Amino acid sequence: MKIILVGASGTIGKAIDQELKVRHEIIRVGLSSGDLQADITDPASIRALFEKAGPFDALISAAGKVHFGALAEMGEAEFAVGLKDKLMGQVNLVLIGREFANDGASFTLTSGVLSHDPIRFGASASMVNGAIDSFVRSAALELPRGMRINSVSPTVVEEALPAYGPYFRGYKAVPAAEAALAYAKSAEGAQTGQIYRVW
Amino acid sequence: MKIILVGASGTIGKAIDQELKVRHEIIRVGLSSGDLQADITDPASIRALFEKAGPFDALISAAGKVHFGALAEMGEAEFAVGLKDKLMGQVNLVLIGREFANDGASFTLTSGVLSHDPIRFGASASMVNGAIDSFVRSAALELPRGMRINSVSPTVVEEALPAYGPYFRGYKAVPAAEAALAYAKSAEGAQTGQIYRVW
Ligand SMILES: NC(=O)c1ccc[n+]([C@@H]2O[C@H](COP(=O)([O-])OP(=O)(O)OC[C@H]3O[C@@H](n4cnc5c(N)ncnc54)[C@H](OP(=O)(O)O)[C@@H]3O)[C@@H](O)[C@H]2O)c1
Ligand SMILES: NC(=O)c1ccc[n+]([C@@H]2O[C@H](COP(=O)([O-])OP(=O)(O)OC[C@H]3O[C@@H](n4cnc5c(N)ncnc54)[C@H](OP(=O)(O)O)[C@@H]3O)[C@@H](O)[C@H]2O)c1
Repeated sequence: MKIILVGASGTIGKAIDQELKVRHEIIRVGLSSGDLQADITDPASIRALFEKAGPFDALISAAGKVHFGALAEMGEAEFAVGLKDKLMGQVNLVLIGREFANDGASFTLTSGVLSHDPIRFGASASMVNGAIDSFVRSAALELPRGMRINSVSPTVVEEALPAYGPYFRGYKAVPAAEAALAYAKSAEGAQTGQIYRVW
Repeated sequence: MKIILVGASGTIGKAIDQELKVRHEIIRVGLSSGDLQADITDPASIRALFEKAGPFDALISAAGKVHFGALAEMGEAEFAVGLKDKLMGQVNLVLIGREFANDGASFTLTSGVLSHDPIRFGASASMVNGAIDSFVRSAALELPRGMRINSVSPTVVEEALPAYGPYFRGYKAVPAAEAALAYAKSAEGAQTGQIYRVW
C-alpha cells in the first residue's frame, strides 16, 4: 500500500513508521520535516499535499496541537487552537483527502485517552478527542467508494513521559510501538467506524 | 434555586421548564423568545445575558444548532456552524457564566445520542455531541467554588418525530418529559462530570 503518514517525525509517528515501513511505501509528512511538508491548519496546504502525493491507499494522521492550560485561564481563544489544529486539521485531511484517495482507502486519525479519563489542564484536549472519536463513528457511514475511517485513542506513551509525566501521574503509559499496532490494524485491517483504545 | 434556562421555548426546553418551575425560579432565555434574549453564538450577548440575569444557582442549556447534511456535501464551513453554535455556544455559557454563578452552582449542557449511534447526515452533530460530553468530563475537574457540570445526551424525543422521524428510523424515541428528568437530576442532584444518557 501507499500510505501517507502525517506527523511521521513525532513521538507516535516514528513508531508508526517503524511498524509499517517493512510492508508498505510510506510518504512521510511533517510541518517542516519529512518527504513532503504540509500545515494541517491550512486547507490550501492540505490540498497541495494531496496533489503532490497523488492517489493513496491509506492516510494516517498522528499530528494535531491543542492548548494545555488551567481552565480558569482559558476562554474561547484557547479552545479555538485545538478546534482548528487537532480537530479540523485532521478532519480536513479526510474531507479533502477523500477526493484523492483510491477506492477502499482508509483514514486513521489520532484522538486520545483524555476524552474519557481527564486531567487538570486538559479541557481542550478532552473536547477535541471526544469530537474526533464521534466524527469517526459517523463519517464511516457516509464515506464513498468503500473508504474506511477509524481513530486511535492512545494513553500517554512512555517516550512522552519526560515531557508529560507530571500531568499523567498514575496513568499506565504504553510504548509508542504498542500504539503503532492500532494504526496498522486500522490501515491493514477491514474495520471502519472504530475507536481503537490503547489504554 | 434560581435557574437560567437557555432554549426554554424549544421542544426539550419546554419540558424542562414544566419539570422545574414547580420547585424553582426559572429565567427563560431564547434567541427571540423568553424573559431574556441572548444569542449563544455571540460571547458579548452571553455576557450581557448574565449581567441582566444576575447571580444564579443553575444554568441549563437546551439550545444549539448544527448543520445536518450529506457528508459528501460538507466541508470545513458546514462543520464550523456546529462548532460555533452548539459546541462553543454552550461552552461559552460555562466559560462566561462561571464569573456570575453562585458558589456550588451547576451547569447542564445538551449533547445527544448521535455521538455514539450515528445516522446519515449527522457527522457534525456526532462530532459536536462527542466534544460536549468530553468537555464536561474534564471541566468538572477544574470548575471553582464547588461548581458542577454535567451533560444530558437525549435520543430523539417523541415531540420531534414529525420533523426528524425519517432520519431516526428504528430509534426508540422518548417523551421530552423523560429527558427533562435528567436535567433535574443534574441541577438538583450533587453529581458532576456526568453524561446522562437518555437512551
Ligand atoms: N505523545 C503522547 O503521549 C500522546 C498520547 C495520546 C495522544 N497523542 C496525540 O498524538 C498526536 C501526535 O503526538 P506526538 O506526541 O507524537 O507529537 P509530536 O512528537 O509533537 O510530533 C508532532 C508531529 O506532527 C507534525 N506537525 C506538527 N504540527 C503540524 C501541522 N500544523 N501540520 C502538519 N504536521 C504537523 C510534526 O512535524 P515537524 O516535526 O516537521 O514539526 C511532527 O511530525 C497528537 O495529536 C497528540 O495529541 C499523543
Ligand atoms: N429535539 C430532539 O429530539 C433532540 C434530541 C437530542 C438532542 N437535541 C438537542 O437539544 C437541543 C435543543 O433541541 P430542541 O429540538 O429542543 O430545539 P428547538 O425546539 O429548535 O428550540 C431551540 C431553542 O433554543 C433557542 N435558540 C435558538 N438559537 C439560539 C441562539 N443562537 N442563542 C440562544 N438561544 C437560541 C430557541 O429560542 P427562540 O424560540 O427564541 O428562537 C429555542 O428556545 C439542541 O442542542 C439539540 O441538538 C434535541
